[in-house]
Amino acid sequence: MPVYKAPLRDMKFLLNEVMDFESHYASLSNGGEATPDMVDAILSECARLSEEVIAPLYRSGDEEGCTLENGQVKTPKGYKEAYEEYRQGGWQGLSHPVEYGGQGLPVSLALLKQEMMGTADWSFGMYPGLSTGAMNTILLHGTEEHRQTYLIPLTEGRWGGTMCLTEPQCGTDLGQVKTRAEAGEDGSYKLTGSKMFISSGDHDLTENIVHIVLARLPDAPKGTRGISLFIVPKYLPNADGGVGEFNNVSCSSLEYKMGIKASATCVINFDEAKGFLIGPPNQGLECMFTFMNTARIGTAIQGVASAERSYQGSLAYAKDRRSMRALSGKKEPEQVADAIIHHGDVRRMLLTQKAIAEGGRAMLYYAVKMADHMVCGHLENDEKKAERADDKLGFLTPILKGFLTELGCEAAYHGMQVFGGHGYIREHGMEQIARDARIATLYEGTTGIQALDLLGRKVLLLTQGKAVREFTGTIANYARKYLRNKEMRPYAMRMLKLAGQWNWLTIRIGMVARKDRDMVATASFDFLMYSGYCFMAFMWMRMAVVAQEKLENGGAESPDFYRAKLATAEFYFEKILPRAQAHATTMLAPTSSVMQMDQEHFVFE
Amino acid sequence: MPVYKAPLRDMKFLLNEVMDFESHYASLSNGGEATPDMVDAILSECARLSEEVIAPLYRSGDEEGCTLENGQVKTPKGYKEAYEEYRQGGWQGLSHPVEYGGQGLPVSLALLKQEMMGTADWSFGMYPGLSTGAMNTILLHGTEEHRQTYLIPLTEGRWGGTMCLTEPQCGTDLGQVKTRAEAGEDGSYKLTGSKMFISSGDHDLTENIVHIVLARLPDAPKGTRGISLFIVPKYLPNADGGVGEFNNVSCSSLEYKMGIKASATCVINFDEAKGFLIGPPNQGLECMFTFMNTARIGTAIQGVASAERSYQGSLAYAKDRRSMRALSGKKEPEQVADAIIHHGDVRRMLLTQKAIAEGGRAMLYYAVKMADHMVCGHLENDEKKAERADDKLGFLTPILKGFLTELGCEAAYHGMQVFGGHGYIREHGMEQIARDARIATLYEGTTGIQALDLLGRKVLLLTQGKAVREFTGTIANYARKYLRNKEMRPYAMRMLKLAGQWNWLTIRIGMVARKDRDMVATASFDFLMYSGYCFMAFMWMRMAVVAQEKLENGGAESPDFYRAKLATAEFYFEKILPRAQAHATTMLAPTSSVMQMDQEHFVFE
Repeated sequence: MPVYKAPLRDMKFLLNEVMDFESHYASLSNGGEATPDMVDAILSECARLSEEVIAPLYRSGDEEGCTLENGQVKTPKGYKEAYEEYRQGGWQGLSHPVEYGGQGLPVSLALLKQEMMGTADWSFGMYPGLSTGAMNTILLHGTEEHRQTYLIPLTEGRWGGTMCLTEPQCGTDLGQVKTRAEAGEDGSYKLTGSKMFISSGDHDLTENIVHIVLARLPDAPKGTRGISLFIVPKYLPNADGGVGEFNNVSCSSLEYKMGIKASATCVINFDEAKGFLIGPPNQGLECMFTFMNTARIGTAIQGVASAERSYQGSLAYAKDRRSMRALSGKKEPEQVADAIIHHGDVRRMLLTQKAIAEGGRAMLYYAVKMADHMVCGHLENDEKKAERADDKLGFLTPILKGFLTELGCEAAYHGMQVFGGHGYIREHGMEQIARDARIATLYEGTTGIQALDLLGRKVLLLTQGKAVREFTGTIANYARKYLRNKEMRPYAMRMLKLAGQWNWLTIRIGMVARKDRDMVATASFDFLMYSGYCFMAFMWMRMAVVAQEKLENGGAESPDFYRAKLATAEFYFEKILPRAQAHATTMLAPTSSVMQMDQEHFVFE
Repeated sequence: MPVYKAPLRDMKFLLNEVMDFESHYASLSNGGEATPDMVDAILSECARLSEEVIAPLYRSGDEEGCTLENGQVKTPKGYKEAYEEYRQGGWQGLSHPVEYGGQGLPVSLALLKQEMMGTADWSFGMYPGLSTGAMNTILLHGTEEHRQTYLIPLTEGRWGGTMCLTEPQCGTDLGQVKTRAEAGEDGSYKLTGSKMFISSGDHDLTENIVHIVLARLPDAPKGTRGISLFIVPKYLPNADGGVGEFNNVSCSSLEYKMGIKASATCVINFDEAKGFLIGPPNQGLECMFTFMNTARIGTAIQGVASAERSYQGSLAYAKDRRSMRALSGKKEPEQVADAIIHHGDVRRMLLTQKAIAEGGRAMLYYAVKMADHMVCGHLENDEKKAERADDKLGFLTPILKGFLTELGCEAAYHGMQVFGGHGYIREHGMEQIARDARIATLYEGTTGIQALDLLGRKVLLLTQGKAVREFTGTIANYARKYLRNKEMRPYAMRMLKLAGQWNWLTIRIGMVARKDRDMVATASFDFLMYSGYCFMAFMWMRMAVVAQEKLENGGAESPDFYRAKLATAEFYFEKILPRAQAHATTMLAPTSSVMQMDQEHFVFE
């Protein structure tokens, strides 16, 4: 079974050497305490928690799963104790305001925490992750009373939280939500309805659970403009802030899922449960959207987590398992056969995993910097800068979510292949990684939804291509600086070409789409994947540039680390990036090739 | 849960309209009885068996799985009854010689049977599938006594069979096999050792199980040239052909797998079990190889089966589930939202599944024609023709196995995506298809092994590129005929280009490989996938040509069927085939990009 080791060397390379988080934190209103020493200490302690406390639950949690007994969900053995250690460490409030019980640090640190905990055991991380969603909602849209009553116990980790959006008839199309909220006498509401796919909907880790529920007021307009947001606790709070009366919020069943089996996915029924309106009536969906970027980046992390965990597992096996001889001659003549890491095709798979894990991590860190003015920090005296960061993050988010979760699945897939038949059995843990990874392309909006959000909304509708122009401008400006650097010149040339092509493709699609709206739908997936490969290439070039500089300056403590970075960058550009060209071709295919078939003619008997 | 409907219309289109199986069967020594009426009757009856008897076991078999009780494996509820109906229908002997209890029909019919049964429930089909492996071994390499004693009850389906190759330390590298066979006094041997991953290694469907076991004689040379093949029954046969004494062959455990849970994957222990040498001593591996093509095509079928089953499931859902409005305007204004089949990106996924299922089926049928002189038929008076068919089949087999199983996984993946979050839960059956599909890229040689077999062995070593020259010649000759056909000309041009490029790539790789053997390993996967996309394109062009002709002749009974074929061909060429160009680029990447990193530098802590 794969053991998890937090990739601290790689994380610090990105934070300190590639992306200069030190000055970034110094520029934040709440970044003062995030000194390099403090960040180091947080990362080390989080690594310990993840490696020693959480990772050991990974397989047993999958085998045992959650159970529903007398209407109460039981998490797998060990979850309670691990959660208690997590809670006592003050991790839940890491990036939430001090006045509500948090530590007030930049949100990027919470995302690094989420990466490590999630790689150790994604199911475990789901519980605090959903609480964070509820916390953000209350922090941004709740009243001071809501914050005092609900945010504080959530931030302290004493209570858990959920987001109750999906119903049987709708997930993406939330305008179809049917759960009703009727005004009570005391300004509260009575909620009735059934929600499904509610992650952490019920569990035994906390004494109370605070549900954030989308529901419809009696006089609400139809569709998405008639949805309001409510706080509905499982138990009503006491006057002293403790847990009071049961609020008719019950879990009627658990879903049997392909993976993340230790994460409780519940059907939650509200039977005239008392709820409290949060945000303006009928603007619930807009309130949700304000932090959807953070939630989606949270899911993007799962792609990197799957790639990292799978890579660590298959790398260990590839060094250990002996089979056949390398084509270029015996590598370990004293052994019965060569370790499979000597075989070219096994290396191709390992390097693909490595390129995805490390390239994906770089993409994430690049983006989380832009998220740091959100939640509780803000960029000092610079609202415009914050807005620009928001726009950029809005553009990058669907790429991160869509592309990284797809590539996370691919990496987990390679992990199984490296193991051969052993990859398919539970014993080695590789098939679990693949099963767990698969949810990430589905929840928080499927890949198809991310693709539409990217191309249809962020690129064409909201910015008329400006989002692409700006980001490719950033890439081109960076690349140009290295045109005269002998080693980096090939990468610089490739990036300049891609920057141009990315813009050109955007214009082409925009022109077709003006006459034929279907173009947005039929091109969107390819546009998303193309964008992802370009973005990842940009990150690999940046990492290669730093590695090259370190090696040239001779002062590197670990030259092998930098050489490996250069080798992986080369692999990425040679063996992975060319896929972008296939997407560039297929995204321009005529819409008729997708749309012309009558839906009745998809099958004949 | 998806229901299975055998795609008889599509199967007959290929058999009768595209590939003229009628004259093919007429040219076979054992094809006389395979008249169109007879083939129709067989297909219909097999479809009924698959749809009504086997398909209903799909989900319950997965949920229950196999269990081991007191050393005896129990298959899931309903398997015994379904197997009995299968056995009584004489299906096991469909393509095996009449003199050993079979029906003597061409082997391609057995593969069509396997497709339908396997799509209904791949786990179920594993049991007769493994028996077929044992039957072929005994038929081709056993003595007349072996055939009388073992082949007859196997052909009648009264006994089951297995192939016992893998051991804990080796799967691909069978030279490492340790199971020992010591000569007994009566000409038999005593086998001792442990085999793992033995599909159908034990079960309760038949009264006896005949294991074909790879083991090492005491004086055997090291490595692959010291492996011999033995028949080792679970129970020794009686003098009257019945089941006698227990032969010390026991199942010590079952593997807990990601999928195909109703297929028993056993650890089988031989404790001085009596065995009978089959084939010459120390040539066991060669004996195995003689029918490896058929076994690998059998696995390739799983790719098509996964694609077909997943497609059927997601198509039904896409017509039923309503979410959002189509970008080009409301399609079903009277409904709360449009069915998701109206969304471009959902169509992209459905059409990808369709293109894979139907294109993959065409690839299979193209190949199984060449397998028809094997097992019990032969090409009348034409040994050279048989040899040529063998060579061609040898070239196409790793493409079919490697490429179709990878694309089967992709199709199953799309099936889940179409369902959104519902794709991840057991209720709808889509995640099971994806879990079941994943074994196909692993067993019978991983995709990486297929790729090496294709490029290293079949293309470069054995034929110095001739295999590619011949197949691309076939493609080019076909394509040239349609250069003046207005509708088909674009496809013809594309195919001619691909035929040329495929050869050119082969030559390039061959030249590099002469100096740098690693090239074979680092290019092999891309070469395999490239070959697959070209082969599938050839099939889609052939199907398009027939559809076009039928429509032009006006006599088509079902013009919509042919129009859908043309639309799917267009989709394939526009939206899928361009991937081949990415593989063409990456296969030529310098070996250094894959081989240069020291194995110690794959990770840093």
